[in-house]
Amino acid sequence: MRPSTPSGALVVDPNGSLTDVEGISVGHHQRIGRGWRSGTTAIITIDGATAGVDVRGGGPGTRETDLLRPENLVQQVNGICLTGGSAYGLAAAHGVMRWLEAAGSGFSVGPQSESIVPIVPAAVIFDLGRGGNFANRPTEDFGWRAAAAARPRPEVNGTVGAGTGAVAGGLQGGLGSASVRLEHGIVVAALAVVNASGSVIDRATGLPWEPTAHALRRPKAWERAELLDAISPPTTATAQPLNTTIGVVATSARLTKAECTRFAAVSHDGMARAIRPVHSMFDGDTVFSLATGVDELPEATAGGFRTEGSRPAAINEILEAAALCFAAACTQAVLSAHSIGGPPSYRDLCPSVFRA
Amino acid sequence: MRPSTPSGALVVDPNGSLTDVEGISVGHHQRIGRGWRSGTTAIITIDGATAGVDVRGGGPGTRETDLLRPENLVQQVNGICLTGGSAYGLAAAHGVMRWLEAAGSGFSVGPQSESIVPIVPAAVIFDLGRGGNFANRPTEDFGWRAAAAARPRPEVNGTVGAGTGAVAGGLQGGLGSASVRLEHGIVVAALAVVNASGSVIDRATGLPWEPTAHALRRPKAWERAELLDAISPPTTATAQPLNTTIGVVATSARLTKAECTRFAAVSHDGMARAIRPVHSMFDGDTVFSLATGVDELPEATAGGFRTEGSRPAAINEILEAAALCFAAACTQAVLSAHSIGGPPSYRDLCPSVFRA
Repeated sequence: MRPSTPSGALVVDPNGSLTDVEGISVGHHQRIGRGWRSGTTAIITIDGATAGVDVRGGGPGTRETDLLRPENLVQQVNGICLTGGSAYGLAAAHGVMRWLEAAGSGFSVGPQSESIVPIVPAAVIFDLGRGGNFANRPTEDFGWRAAAAARPRPEVNGTVGAGTGAVAGGLQGGLGSASVRLEHGIVVAALAVVNASGSVIDRATGLPWEPTAHALRRPKAWERAELLDAISPPTTATAQPLNTTIGVVATSARLTKAECTRFAAVSHDGMARAIRPVHSMFDGDTVFSLATGVDELPEATAGGFRTEGSRPAAINEILEAAALCFAAACTQAVLSAHSIGGPPSYRDLCPSVFRA
Repeated sequence: MRPSTPSGALVVDPNGSLTDVEGISVGHHQRIGRGWRSGTTAIITIDGATAGVDVRGGGPGTRETDLLRPENLVQQVNGICLTGGSAYGLAAAHGVMRWLEAAGSGFSVGPQSESIVPIVPAAVIFDLGRGGNFANRPTEDFGWRAAAAARPRPEVNGTVGAGTGAVAGGLQGGLGSASVRLEHGIVVAALAVVNASGSVIDRATGLPWEPTAHALRRPKAWERAELLDAISPPTTATAQPLNTTIGVVATSARLTKAECTRFAAVSHDGMARAIRPVHSMFDGDTVFSLATGVDELPEATAGGFRTEGSRPAAINEILEAAALCFAAACTQAVLSAHSIGGPPSYRDLCPSVFRA
């Protein structure tokens, strides 16, 4: 199955990575076992990237999001921290900051080169107690280690980093990514950590709501029976009240901070398509956006907005790609997760889906 | 096909209406022919309803939306005006106001019973020139007539009211509605006017992206060929740069103004599922929400938020229903439209889809 779009033009690579956008590195650190099941993911843009955010869940846990409003001073971030540990996990962002400080990357606040403040917005998922010990949650050290592990090559998907303790609609959740290359070489990519109260899997078919470019077979009848058994009944939203899908979309295009806000906003359309229901009172759904600025877009005034090559038309392509990539990343997060002693994974329950 | 949800619980009635929420009346006025193809829809809540809004498109045309922010004074609206005519069409809202003033419905601003200001937020779609004459657009008179035509029984769907001049992804657009009754009798309903640059129809199947409760057959091969021909190629976004999906979700529950804001917000998830792509720079996508307050929800403090019967859990049900209803209303808008001399309608191109 290939994802079809109304335009028929954009085909997302579900094996793509956020690091397909040059200048972005991704690193993970996690602990599993001995009372632990949580982790942290650091997205590093050591040379800075223009950024935005859209918080659309009813129970968010975030830091440095006010700074991202278009009217505020700072234009670029040096990293994004996604982490388990609920609000406690925000401490991990300090570790990412400290690593960036040591690397000399930050907002300059004085004449000395060391006078910098690294800008690291962060968002958390709720995974407290899932490893058995409520007190085991990502610390500053997790953030440092995730940042130190960051590499400019495809990150691992699945049960890793901030996705380690994730649960998605009764299944093991995780971390997924996807990317697409637009005409003119502009890259758009997404990374999602899915810990949703809603489900990525359609109960009617046993397959993801959103098609992926992977060829998937329908699950066998006995697989589907086990799957339906695992997928949360409606009461789970109250039995496990805190959830959240968080993530990052990135592009190689040069966007303004205000445009980054819209870029983050439209990514939530992908979340809405891939996870149902979503944006509930018990989800802290938050997406950050990054624009590295390598690829220039047309000037805002070039040719008026009606023309084919206008700036709004170019931004529309990026927005459509953002929604498609974020949906694919959400689906990929659940398809690539494996069970680590918590809920079953989709892959464990429905192995025949993946058989070519 | 019945819409399946992760919970398997909610089944939307695509023949449902916004007027299934008691206290809400809907009326239309439109002109077709002699250079005209536009109209106005008035949603009347003569006894007032708590309201919210979420504007998520890049090119909105609205009035009285700042008033709807939770922190602002006025808590209730007396009507909502949806209209063609782009920003010129906002004049129609004045006609709705004048009709409400005559009916004695408004925000009290003095000791005399006539000292009222009717509160009528409004949003517009772009349909200028579609009837042949750029100067023909809804006026104050359209608003008055739509309000005067408002009835508390199912409104007509299709090519009517604000949906008259609508075009959706190369097909005749229109106005659609849907409703669902939750446990405990709470009603949630939606009305959508679809004039989107994106498509409600999946090119891969020739069927809507979102399943409807109507039994639909796959279009015949020749129908599908004509359909694909009609559905806009990617360049249409620039050839017809201004579009917009607008609508209203309503519930019989008593919500605060802040809760109405979230109610409107999550409705956009339904828009994201039913129309692809959506929320572009060329769409002014806006959803208003109304809560008539007939059905009480649990107090915010009742039993803590983890319990089954908590207020957030009750609100979550309304949010999920809002997304489902709004998606169904968007789909219904295009399925029920008929061509009036502009682009072909889905119904005209694919009649066999509807054959039982």
